[in-house]
Amino acid sequence: MERKKANIPVTTVYRLSYYCRALLECGTSGFISSQDLAKLTGFSDALVRRDLSYFGRFGIPGRGYPVSELREKISRILGIDRKWKVALIGLGNLGSALLRYKAFEKQGFQIVAVFDSDPGKIGKSRSGVEIWDINQLEKEVRKRQIEMAIIAVPADAAQEVIGRVVGSGIKAILNFAPMKVKVPGSVSLVNIDFTVELERLSCVATR
Amino acid sequence: MERKKANIPVTTVYRLSYYCRALLECGTSGFISSQDLAKLTGFSDALVRRDLSYFGRFGIPGRGYPVSELREKISRILGIDRKWKVALIGLGNLGSALLRYKAFEKQGFQIVAVFDSDPGKIGKSRSGVEIWDINQLEKEVRKRQIEMAIIAVPADAAQEVIGRVVGSGIKAILNFAPMKVKVPGSVSLVNIDFTVELERLSCVATR
Repeated sequence: MERKKANIPVTTVYRLSYYCRALLECGTSGFISSQDLAKLTGFSDALVRRDLSYFGRFGIPGRGYPVSELREKISRILGIDRKWKVALIGLGNLGSALLRYKAFEKQGFQIVAVFDSDPGKIGKSRSGVEIWDINQLEKEVRKRQIEMAIIAVPADAAQEVIGRVVGSGIKAILNFAPMKVKVPGSVSLVNIDFTVELERLSCVATR
Repeated sequence: MERKKANIPVTTVYRLSYYCRALLECGTSGFISSQDLAKLTGFSDALVRRDLSYFGRFGIPGRGYPVSELREKISRILGIDRKWKVALIGLGNLGSALLRYKAFEKQGFQIVAVFDSDPGKIGKSRSGVEIWDINQLEKEVRKRQIEMAIIAVPADAAQEVIGRVVGSGIKAILNFAPMKVKVPGSVSLVNIDFTVELERLSCVATR
């Protein structure tokens, strides 16, 4: 029996991503012990065992966890047992870096359209992806069945852009704009704020 | 009495960054209630009260917390009650976005030197910051008393670059390269992996 996702702490979700990647390097058959998974990912054995306990007891004492079953379970929990069509909004320096980020597609996240407001970019394509006028967002999202958006626009444009993204029917947003944005409760939002990460680092570094 | 930093969970550290920013908008005098801080940051009142309990009991019943004292305490915990001199390594698209990221300096993180291996960039300056040959790293770090590095190089160069950064004496590293890097126990490392963040989003979005 699996626990409900809502019960899995966000710090465990982070580690699941790393377990999943480590398991990809283990082939598809055989077993893996929590010790080996700990070694591969750099987390402690106790932490790995606690995290995996969220999936119920399916390890075999003395052998460990069946690799392919564990990978399937984690992929399902992470929502990466499927493909996601993603819109990238904003093709400045950060957007360009994200568009060329090869790891996304490997994990099932495919950027299928880029949106910008710069007439010099609209209508062209970059890394094989067409660049559309932000005004075409709703139409293209419907046409291409896009379900996820990555926001890489300047802070002062973020709330307006996110309003449009929500209006287009997208329910999952990864926001890089360094400001507090509001979305309805039905929309999932993850913010990446680089300064918050630097503060996390300075917090640890001054311990 | 303040609790030891080591006892503060990483999720609380994240929220502290947001409290600190909200407090900056509250002036320097007066009191703020946990309810108001909750409203300003979007977290729940209960969560705010629990987080602030890490600083001991210094709120005044019926009035709340003294704004400037609370801000000072949080800044000290976050290690941003001082300035940090930062080296940016790698000036591709992501590095360029980070160099132009104004929020860093506002929170006390000043990028004082950029390092790259591209002869076309070395010797020039961008956003008022000089670009140095990565081979000059150790010398410049010593000369400029740099204590923190942001790594924005491709994955296949990351471990070598981080080895050099550690060798230069830097003790705090924010790594954007999507790969598992190793540092000695005396060095603080925070990894930002964009795919892990997207997986966190897809995990929440499929709940």
